Amino acid sequence: MDFTKLDGLIPAVIQDDVSNEVLMVGFMNQTALDQTVATGYATFFSRTRGQLWTKGETSGNRLRVERILVDCDDDTVLVRVTRLGDGNVCHTGDRSCFNKVLPVASDSGRKSGEDRPASAGSHKVRERGRDLGAE
Amino acid sequence: MDFTKLDGLIPAVIQDDVSNEVLMVGFMNQTALDQTVATGYATFFSRTRGQLWTKGETSGNRLRVERILVDCDDDTVLVRVTRLGDGNVCHTGDRSCFNKVLPVASDSGRKSGEDRPASAGSHKVRERGRDLGAE
Repeated sequence: MDFTKLDGLIPAVIQDDVSNEVLMVGFMNQTALDQTVATGYATFFSRTRGQLWTKGETSGNRLRVERILVDCDDDTVLVRVTRLGDGNVCHTGDRSCFNKVLPVASDSGRKSGEDRPASAGSHKVRERGRDLGAE
Repeated sequence: MDFTKLDGLIPAVIQDDVSNEVLMVGFMNQTALDQTVATGYATFFSRTRGQLWTKGETSGNRLRVERILVDCDDDTVLVRVTRLGDGNVCHTGDRSCFNKVLPVASDSGRKSGEDRPASAGSHKVRERGRDLGAE
């Protein structure tokens, strides 16, 4: 892993292994990643507190690691987890930390010339994906 | 948005709006985010090149933004996209940048006392989630 790009840290995207929701993004240093791998529970490095924290250590809402995927640049990990405890990952009490919507340009505001989805025949998948989305 | 924690940058998690796969993680500064919102196509700030880049500008594999979600700390965005062009997001030619697996502790290595998933009755969802996973 390459920890040099962010002063010793890498982003860790936490994704629910069942629903595929993105639940939160934390940061890990080498020690946090080692501890995550060794224990099987997600441990982060808190940038604000300057120390390691194992998610759910106090609340019981730990994140059991099912799989860790590394990206092509070796500078980000995708951690697929099972939510334990009451299953609420966000400190606000919500299941996911991503709950606010930022408005984007409407379709009419975009150039549409070559704007076709990559694969055809995806409608069935789309419907199923919607069911499982972060919405 | 809070751009102060990473010297003017925030992580941007790119998730396929159809399959819910996490495709890549990039970084945005305020300008990249503004441009993403205004154009409806994902634009990042390249840390290595020190400049903005609109994903797919050359290859045609642009990422059409369907929705942007902001996290509880206002320091990360989750960008749900439709893949355009040939749909391959990674520069290696793969659909996703997350293709390498990092081994984690086996279940037997974990304490199992309170280690129960957050919600019961999730087996059906799990099966469907597996189909759509980043595997």
